[in-house]
Amino acid sequence: MVNAGAMSGSGNLMDFLDEPFPDVGTYEDFHTIDWLREKSRDTDRHRKITSKSKESIWEFIKSLLDAWSGWVVMLLIGLLAGTLAGVIDLAVDWMTDLKEGVCLSAFWYSHEQCCWTSNETTFEDRDKCPLWQKWSELLVNQSEGASAYILNYLMYILWALLFAFLAVSLVRVFAPYACGSGIPEIKTILSGFIIRGYLGKWTLLIKTVTLVLVVSSGLSLGKEGPLVHVACCCGNFFSSLFSKYSKNEGKRREVLSAAAAAGVSVAFGAPIGGVLFSLEEVSYYFPLKTLWRSFFAALVAAFTLRSINPFGNSRLVLFYVEYHTPWYMAELFPFILLGVFGGLWGTLFIRCNIAWCRRRKTTKLGKYPVLEVIVVTAITAISAYPNPYTRQSTSELISELFNDCGALESSQLCDYINDPNMTRPVDDIPDRPAGVGVYTAMWQLALALIFKIVITIFTFGMKIPSGLFIPSMAVGAMAGRMVGIGVEQLAYHHHDWIVFRNWCRPGADCVTPGLYAMVGAAACLGGVTRMTVSLVVIMFELTGGLEYIVPLMAAAVTSKWVADAFGKEGIYEAHIHLNGYPFLDVKDEFTHRTLATDVMRPRRGEPPLSVLTQDSMTVEDVETLIKETDYNGFPVVVSRDSERLIGFAQRRELILAIKNARQRQEGIVSNSIMYFTEEPPELPANSPHPLKLRRVLNLSPFTVTDHTPMETVVDIFRKLGLRQCLVTRSGRLLGIITKKDVLRHMAQMANQDPESIMFN
Amino acid sequence: MVNAGAMSGSGNLMDFLDEPFPDVGTYEDFHTIDWLREKSRDTDRHRKITSKSKESIWEFIKSLLDAWSGWVVMLLIGLLAGTLAGVIDLAVDWMTDLKEGVCLSAFWYSHEQCCWTSNETTFEDRDKCPLWQKWSELLVNQSEGASAYILNYLMYILWALLFAFLAVSLVRVFAPYACGSGIPEIKTILSGFIIRGYLGKWTLLIKTVTLVLVVSSGLSLGKEGPLVHVACCCGNFFSSLFSKYSKNEGKRREVLSAAAAAGVSVAFGAPIGGVLFSLEEVSYYFPLKTLWRSFFAALVAAFTLRSINPFGNSRLVLFYVEYHTPWYMAELFPFILLGVFGGLWGTLFIRCNIAWCRRRKTTKLGKYPVLEVIVVTAITAISAYPNPYTRQSTSELISELFNDCGALESSQLCDYINDPNMTRPVDDIPDRPAGVGVYTAMWQLALALIFKIVITIFTFGMKIPSGLFIPSMAVGAMAGRMVGIGVEQLAYHHHDWIVFRNWCRPGADCVTPGLYAMVGAAACLGGVTRMTVSLVVIMFELTGGLEYIVPLMAAAVTSKWVADAFGKEGIYEAHIHLNGYPFLDVKDEFTHRTLATDVMRPRRGEPPLSVLTQDSMTVEDVETLIKETDYNGFPVVVSRDSERLIGFAQRRELILAIKNARQRQEGIVSNSIMYFTEEPPELPANSPHPLKLRRVLNLSPFTVTDHTPMETVVDIFRKLGLRQCLVTRSGRLLGIITKKDVLRHMAQMANQDPESIMFN
Repeated sequence: MVNAGAMSGSGNLMDFLDEPFPDVGTYEDFHTIDWLREKSRDTDRHRKITSKSKESIWEFIKSLLDAWSGWVVMLLIGLLAGTLAGVIDLAVDWMTDLKEGVCLSAFWYSHEQCCWTSNETTFEDRDKCPLWQKWSELLVNQSEGASAYILNYLMYILWALLFAFLAVSLVRVFAPYACGSGIPEIKTILSGFIIRGYLGKWTLLIKTVTLVLVVSSGLSLGKEGPLVHVACCCGNFFSSLFSKYSKNEGKRREVLSAAAAAGVSVAFGAPIGGVLFSLEEVSYYFPLKTLWRSFFAALVAAFTLRSINPFGNSRLVLFYVEYHTPWYMAELFPFILLGVFGGLWGTLFIRCNIAWCRRRKTTKLGKYPVLEVIVVTAITAISAYPNPYTRQSTSELISELFNDCGALESSQLCDYINDPNMTRPVDDIPDRPAGVGVYTAMWQLALALIFKIVITIFTFGMKIPSGLFIPSMAVGAMAGRMVGIGVEQLAYHHHDWIVFRNWCRPGADCVTPGLYAMVGAAACLGGVTRMTVSLVVIMFELTGGLEYIVPLMAAAVTSKWVADAFGKEGIYEAHIHLNGYPFLDVKDEFTHRTLATDVMRPRRGEPPLSVLTQDSMTVEDVETLIKETDYNGFPVVVSRDSERLIGFAQRRELILAIKNARQRQEGIVSNSIMYFTEEPPELPANSPHPLKLRRVLNLSPFTVTDHTPMETVVDIFRKLGLRQCLVTRSGRLLGIITKKDVLRHMAQMANQDPESIMFN
Repeated sequence: MVNAGAMSGSGNLMDFLDEPFPDVGTYEDFHTIDWLREKSRDTDRHRKITSKSKESIWEFIKSLLDAWSGWVVMLLIGLLAGTLAGVIDLAVDWMTDLKEGVCLSAFWYSHEQCCWTSNETTFEDRDKCPLWQKWSELLVNQSEGASAYILNYLMYILWALLFAFLAVSLVRVFAPYACGSGIPEIKTILSGFIIRGYLGKWTLLIKTVTLVLVVSSGLSLGKEGPLVHVACCCGNFFSSLFSKYSKNEGKRREVLSAAAAAGVSVAFGAPIGGVLFSLEEVSYYFPLKTLWRSFFAALVAAFTLRSINPFGNSRLVLFYVEYHTPWYMAELFPFILLGVFGGLWGTLFIRCNIAWCRRRKTTKLGKYPVLEVIVVTAITAISAYPNPYTRQSTSELISELFNDCGALESSQLCDYINDPNMTRPVDDIPDRPAGVGVYTAMWQLALALIFKIVITIFTFGMKIPSGLFIPSMAVGAMAGRMVGIGVEQLAYHHHDWIVFRNWCRPGADCVTPGLYAMVGAAACLGGVTRMTVSLVVIMFELTGGLEYIVPLMAAAVTSKWVADAFGKEGIYEAHIHLNGYPFLDVKDEFTHRTLATDVMRPRRGEPPLSVLTQDSMTVEDVETLIKETDYNGFPVVVSRDSERLIGFAQRRELILAIKNARQRQEGIVSNSIMYFTEEPPELPANSPHPLKLRRVLNLSPFTVTDHTPMETVVDIFRKLGLRQCLVTRSGRLLGIITKKDVLRHMAQMANQDPESIMFN
């Protein structure tokens, strides 16, 4: 009984889903998807395959392949994302060194590869080898002196300008969507918005190439955010190969969520952190099945990258560290201070960057993107070269700052005065007084910090691929290392102070400045992005020890609290708002007391809602209505008097159905009556043939009453991923609320301009 | 304009929420909560506090305290859960040893503590010291010989029986809810069901005490699952201290989710794994804010436990390991085999255990819980004593099986034949031929494996606290270690075979049998619980290295696939179904083609729906209706003819409102007209005073049309946490679907007995 009813009920639906007309079920550009509809389409598809699979062995194999295609897509994404990350790392390594000089034995070798392959070098001289020639040596045969310095300086600037120019030109000509970090747009796409081409093959190719160029050019940006975009492009590419994903925008988004996890996994060598990042920061709809698949994709990507081994240290990132000394309770105070710094820097950065980006959007500045990039690159290169901490690549800088000073460390930061009487095992060096090198390094770091803080504000948002993770981490790491050295010297020189007396006796290794750098990096990253758990997990995977979770967490929490006190938006949400993307944030709580009746259209005084009646309008009436309005669909009511709702018809499907009927069905003319009921209405004998349209009618439109609090309506839109919702009172249709209305209302309540939201 | 409308709209709601009658807003036992309503009540509360906070400094401080109370609750939960876990560990340690003997210097010392405090012991004799006396030594002054063995055997059995008897009696008399692992019930509670007393203070106390008793009695059960229950009891206790949580069942569940994470965190020393376990396995509604707070609670709990340091190894669990050798691709084959074993064991266990528990429920067996526990304990103790691998506690067994054989290892499992010519550093011992001890151990392990497999089926589900993690891990670890030793010996004796030639030359340390034990443990745990990501993360936190994620994941995936092929339900879902808990699983996909009309009440042929009319029923009519039916609420319609829906009135609130009106309002008699409209209906002059009930009317009841696919309805119930939903067609009320109807329909579709579902 039950099943018979069900079959007849959904029979009509199935006729229609067998795609009598082409293009049904696709969405137009800049439209939002209807998650419920996508889900029910996927269930129908799945049911069809399951019932077919009992018919023959071939169909059974096909159903198995279909069931496994999700895992295959994940495997492919992992492999490609890992490979691309490895290639990018290797290329960046070579091109960054190209700014300094060239390898004589093979020009495609980086400095390190060049010197390692040469036999003449010893460990001490590993940075100097005859095969590697600086530009001054190669061009004018001088390696020292002022003219050589100036020549190297010029070559450095020239290469940087060349790389940046190439990058911005490629982006402008071939793939305008390749610019930026991509994370705000990916968040919007994952929430159900359609931006055609944003994850296309051209974007993938151009973003990969230009990412190498801009990172090598020495601009203050990172490759981590764009790598997430690149991984999502891979995900989109592979999902287009399987009809299960290519024909269903909802399922496609599950793949993209997993791809984002794979992207972070290779960017930071943190598979678990990647999955949590996708869950916490990027994804909108994240069922448990996707959690497991994301984890698989993230692991495959990490293993692919490890087998490429771009850094030659069997690690996935340049700045992997392992500390061996514990931390002490008293150190929590400087850690929390670093958290405050991170929160302040995050707020400052977001405010200034958004102000500058708004200026770019609204003034003439936005019309000269190439010039802007050239100018910023020139300023960056000119200011960066004289300071060793800005000249080297930012990842190398972070790596140096994170590292603990071992016995073999040659860095200036490790220039401590050794006690000649002491002989100790290598990995347990006590706190020592700082030497001249450390003091010089402190000054240079302070200058580098100010420079980074300023230049990053202008860099992020230009028309080139640019990530924010690395510059934020660098700012935090520099501040942290300076604080760390300060605390270390304080503890060494004043070990009789109460705060130090208990844990820092002379000759003990009590303060690890590298740990302060890492805590600072976490704090700044947290201040800018407002990531929490995923941030701590990423950092935990970088250090490989539960030991330091408490310092990291203390800094991350402080930084989030401080930054949230000045404004709830992270940088990605701020850019989403700036660009007016229609993003319904799950994290925002809607706490206003408005009701559905305040938001629905038509408003008081507006003309009544455009509706269809179930059996009294002619084809021509409907065509006129479609022509005169641009609504995405029309509610269907019993009659204009009773206004009792029976369903909802999509504009797109109405147009297709009428076109189809006019072409193929006989007797359909402009004054044919259209009916949505089961049976045709009783018509006079000589009237034209009526047109049955029940199959384009959605018989289960979503309704709320006019008294429903908007809080509940927003919740429904978020959780069910609706596109529109009809408003009724006592069974009568009153109006309609679309996702756009909800977003506009939320913007209005938050005192923002509701008209800024981009939507069709 | 907008705000004015909103204020007047929710004004009525606020009157009512100011609690004119007591008990409004609470739920009865074995009822399900309405998540949407809880959420909107919390928003109202929050709004009130925010608006009040501007009035005075005191109110502002109160609002700050309110905002911070969430973090305070988390801190308290972490502290208490960590402390309880530490106390349980210490008590279990002492009482397990009490079965063997007693310490002369202080009877509350465990064997290890007793011998460590004694000065006479050397490292080799650390297990034998004069202060520690076995029962035979103490009672008859004999330490060797048959009679001493028999005496010790008897004492072992006696103590076990005493502990088990005490435990089952305490549970029966004081807290019947303290039995079992508690996870199925916690899942059900978190999904919105009310079971009063399940998380009460008595349950907390008795479960903690009896948990120590049953684990010490040597039964085949673990403390991990019950620890989650204990942590949730802590969560419930602390949330009752803050009105924000105690008065809102929805918010309370957020705290409980975090408490579950803290429980796993201390059970396995895995804070991140705990959070993921709560997210993947236990929680129903897990907003991002809860993710972050759970992480905090889990960390605090882990740190509290670490500072108690119950195992004296600065680790949170007894079986923490660190391996140093890598694994090889060829080893994936035995790992996958272990996965298959885990899946098969999972299926077998679930089937047999459920069959046995059903038998207990339906036959006379269930009437003698104490006898059952005594019998199973006696069988366990009698069979366990002769075999060293079952005599020791299960955690110690797992620890021994996970451990790699170092140079100082005295275990029988490490009795390899050493090459006397070879001197090697301690931590890099090559593969060696197995000695006699290893072969003996293999036999004993095989017997122990069979014993564990059988006895666990009968143990889990008895009326005592019993966890399943440790026995499952032990089964897997035993199987894994045996496979590992097998592969190791094969590789040693046949290192010229193709599969070994590439990676296992003589003298190399290629196979780590401990790793096989860990992989086997993960596979069996996965087969039983169907955990995926959280399982791998917990194992990853136990080993502390990304290196072994691939073996663990391969085994976990295989085990899940194999087990899922025989049945989708994990052990917790199976027990939920067995007990008929009303749990709407998020993971189950509902793919049948039924429609709302097939599920709603009234069915065809049943009497029409009991409804109230908006302005034509008398108080007496309504009282009769309430008396004659037991529905939780009644839809309110314009009139019986039009059947146009205007709202929904809760039974409980109607009763309270009528009672209140009869007591306090003048002129309300049995034939007063009740009206739900804004204005009273026009009545004849001499008719009694009408009763206005608009404030108990929910003006925004949830509706769907009769044509809505059940797939969508199930989705709505799950995602919005509804309690009931009204069904309409063309604006006319047709029927109602409650959560119980949905659950019954799902059970029916899955060919289960729909009447088994417990619900009021």
